[in-house]
Amino acid sequence: MTQNPSPRKQLIEFLCGFPALNEVLISKLVEMIPVIAPARGTILVREGEVPADCYFVLKGLVRQYQFIDGNERTTEFYTETHGIVSSRHYTEQTLSPFFLECMEDCLLIAGNMEIDEANYREFPELREITRHMLEQDLNRSKEDHARFILSSPADRYVHFMETRKDLSNRVPLHQIASYLGMTAESLSRIRKRIIS
Amino acid sequence: MTQNPSPRKQLIEFLCGFPALNEVLISKLVEMIPVIAPARGTILVREGEVPADCYFVLKGLVRQYQFIDGNERTTEFYTETHGIVSSRHYTEQTLSPFFLECMEDCLLIAGNMEIDEANYREFPELREITRHMLEQDLNRSKEDHARFILSSPADRYVHFMETRKDLSNRVPLHQIASYLGMTAESLSRIRKRIIS
Repeated sequence: MTQNPSPRKQLIEFLCGFPALNEVLISKLVEMIPVIAPARGTILVREGEVPADCYFVLKGLVRQYQFIDGNERTTEFYTETHGIVSSRHYTEQTLSPFFLECMEDCLLIAGNMEIDEANYREFPELREITRHMLEQDLNRSKEDHARFILSSPADRYVHFMETRKDLSNRVPLHQIASYLGMTAESLSRIRKRIIS
Repeated sequence: MTQNPSPRKQLIEFLCGFPALNEVLISKLVEMIPVIAPARGTILVREGEVPADCYFVLKGLVRQYQFIDGNERTTEFYTETHGIVSSRHYTEQTLSPFFLECMEDCLLIAGNMEIDEANYREFPELREITRHMLEQDLNRSKEDHARFILSSPADRYVHFMETRKDLSNRVPLHQIASYLGMTAESLSRIRKRIIS
């Protein structure tokens, strides 16, 4: 864990984004919600472990990957705009098939079922916020999936650059290629064609 | 709209699945929650329309599809086990790029933002149930997407038959092929190889 200068400030900034929360409530929530600051390289969950916590990315980048026939394959990048790091393996407490690794120094809200339940009981407004966030993330996830089904590899890359351009400077190309369901060589060819 | 013998009974059965709801609450909710029974062939939303409602499938099958270069492409099948029919276009009230069509006589919970808000205010327990359903659907959607990225077309079909076998008798093969991101010919070859 590294020391972050202002995790509290980041959390306040994040909570201020929800009109349902007033200032009094926000200052109470800041005391309740656990924020952690894992350093770049921290593995949050390993393949074969039962995830103890779920997370929300306030700052930084968490990558989800797994090994298929010895090859590392990236299946998700969680960032400030795609923040909910959770899975069936967390909610059902089963073995994770994938790794979750901090690719940058991160600031994460760390939740688990007991803390969440206690907070929901004390602050019912949180339920509404969580519902809203889940709904948004679900819609985006469905839309991403529909687009993936419908698109050619080149279209996928163009859309990725339109919507997640920030990532292109934060992760190596072979991880982007893997996430877009193609080899690094294919992505390289597509990029050359687009540039020329 | 066709007459369904027992929409009320189906709704009660569905609500009984949530331990957080007691019998008194369920009988109140049954009066509040609007259930519709659109017949096979009903188009719930057309491309270019703003979706007025979102739905939950109690019974039947709703297919999501759109036209790409004149070809109809299926991107989702919503059934009793994958029930939440919603999208960014509903929550943001923008033009739908896809159609939603009832492929069977259906029984659907029809929601919209005003009804939902009124029900949430009167029955706070509903928020928790909705949160739980959204969380489950989000986890499944993410998992489906990760699997799609990682799998070969043959693996996708095998997994489809393991997890959504019920669909294989309910929709034509070319729609399944499209949903799995392949041509009908490729799926046909894969099926032959698996059978032999």
